[in-house]
Amino acid sequence: MCPSRLVLEHVTSRWGVLVLAALLDRSYRFSELRREVGGVSEKMLAQTLRTLERDGFVHRDAKPVIPPRVDYSLTELGREAGEQVWALARWTERRLEAVHTARESYDAREAHTP
Amino acid sequence: MCPSRLVLEHVTSRWGVLVLAALLDRSYRFSELRREVGGVSEKMLAQTLRTLERDGFVHRDAKPVIPPRVDYSLTELGREAGEQVWALARWTERRLEAVHTARESYDAREAHTP
Repeated sequence: MCPSRLVLEHVTSRWGVLVLAALLDRSYRFSELRREVGGVSEKMLAQTLRTLERDGFVHRDAKPVIPPRVDYSLTELGREAGEQVWALARWTERRLEAVHTARESYDAREAHTP
Repeated sequence: MCPSRLVLEHVTSRWGVLVLAALLDRSYRFSELRREVGGVSEKMLAQTLRTLERDGFVHRDAKPVIPPRVDYSLTELGREAGEQVWALARWTERRLEAVHTARESYDAREAHTP
């Protein structure tokens, strides 16, 4: 497997896209980010953040205060990744109707093929 | 699940990316495309092409000749998709070294965390 493949999978994963998109706006604490992304379990969000941190896209800033406070933000590399992926995700949404039309016409064609 | 999610998965799938990239250059017959993409089984390539055709990204031109001849090319929508995805894939390759460096430093840090 081509080594860039895994990176592509991380940034285009379901939660990867949404986390990168949220962090393009501003930094978040874990629980805030979980509300912002929506529908993600604690475990999945933690795993997504760990993967993105390990790849060098997300910076985890654990402040030595009580109660503990951890802020997540994009690194410069992560900002680049986020912008690329977000452009692709926006394009997908913009062209979704054309895709639906194509599918309907494909399915109608296939239904009439002997 | 957000409906654009599936489209994003189709165009960023392992073979989806490579098929779109190949077809950005020119149209291909099935067996030529299989050689060009490399490492893909007949079954997987056929399935990838069917998915991309159904989404309206790939045009399948079956010529009524003997022996049968089928050419695959990008539609206008597919060209847009291919360009977007290819830009992301190229970015990933370009920044792969930075990702590797980040991973090494993350792993070294984690190894020293009690």
